Amino acid sequence: MRISELATVTGVPVATIKYYLREKLLPEGERTSATQAVYGQAHVERLRLIRALVDSGVGIASARQVVAALDDPPDNPNHLLGMAHAAISPPVDEDLDPTAAQELIRRWGWAPETCTPQQVAGVARALDSIERGGFAIPETTMDAYLVGIRQMVEAEIDAIPTTSAEDAVRYVVLGTVLVEPLLLALRRVAEEHVSGERFGGADT
Amino acid sequence: MRISELATVTGVPVATIKYYLREKLLPEGERTSATQAVYGQAHVERLRLIRALVDSGVGIASARQVVAALDDPPDNPNHLLGMAHAAISPPVDEDLDPTAAQELIRRWGWAPETCTPQQVAGVARALDSIERGGFAIPETTMDAYLVGIRQMVEAEIDAIPTTSAEDAVRYVVLGTVLVEPLLLALRRVAEEHVSGERFGGADT
Repeated sequence: MRISELATVTGVPVATIKYYLREKLLPEGERTSATQAVYGQAHVERLRLIRALVDSGVGIASARQVVAALDDPPDNPNHLLGMAHAAISPPVDEDLDPTAAQELIRRWGWAPETCTPQQVAGVARALDSIERGGFAIPETTMDAYLVGIRQMVEAEIDAIPTTSAEDAVRYVVLGTVLVEPLLLALRRVAEEHVSGERFGGADT
Repeated sequence: MRISELATVTGVPVATIKYYLREKLLPEGERTSATQAVYGQAHVERLRLIRALVDSGVGIASARQVVAALDDPPDNPNHLLGMAHAAISPPVDEDLDPTAAQELIRRWGWAPETCTPQQVAGVARALDSIERGGFAIPETTMDAYLVGIRQMVEAEIDAIPTTSAEDAVRYVVLGTVLVEPLLLALRRVAEEHVSGERFGGADT
């Protein structure tokens, strides 16, 4: 299909598609003349992925890293996960002390050394902001987080497709970035309902 | 204490404190002369709360709503929760069809009618972005989300302090806003570790 058709099919404007082509997020189409190229189903799927990433707040440079991982995937699915996470994570803040984060990860029975620096930094940043905010998470709540998160993540990992590395990366990246807002939104709904159960008097 | 001391104690610059005073986020100090005022421990705590909110990406207008709720709290803790959530949520996008979100909430055994419009809209926005991204959450994963989230939220609600409405609001607002990044960061760490357990070959 021509670039105009690609725009119609995906809902992405031609100017934006050209921008993604210049930024090497989207591979060139097959040239049919000096000024014309045709695009296929792979371009449609790649465009949908790029839009999903950009809509989820992932920057162009990080999206390019994810796309590069798709085009040249590593062999071990476990490396894919770290790479995908690294691409969609903010840079590590060197000023942040990772000790509390490492302790928490260890308390949960895991080894901080096998995490990527971004994964540890993400926990460190969150703990730092909680502390600066004057908030403290009770032990029992923290324990419930461990149980709940493990339960959710085991189901997620079981569902990673093993058909191809490209499928696995797409699944991990989208499953991480796109599902995060859903989990937070569902948590708020759950808070409303559980608090209604506890305190009663839910007004209608 | 003088405003300069308040700045030292909280680490918030004097110019920023003056901005919060003008924006009515922070109550005036007690005037000691036409140009001088003194501030107390309540100002320190309020400032820490404001910083926590602003650092978590809450806008000035929403922070003002939260602060207003603290200064004039409703009686039912369950109303507090909806109000606190409303203040820290983006406005409802009227173009978004809430049907899928309502169905999901109902499937989880809850009544969408007792949710605030923002809570339903949050789920709708997340589902919409997942669909537009070409991602689908398997049934088994969705079921695990329900179990996991319920587990976490029950512990959270049990820990809401009942000492005063102000304590409860602060707890709910901070517990929602500040804890969200931690849950997402811990989910990524858990993904790394569970995937290591499943696929092995974690490199060190």
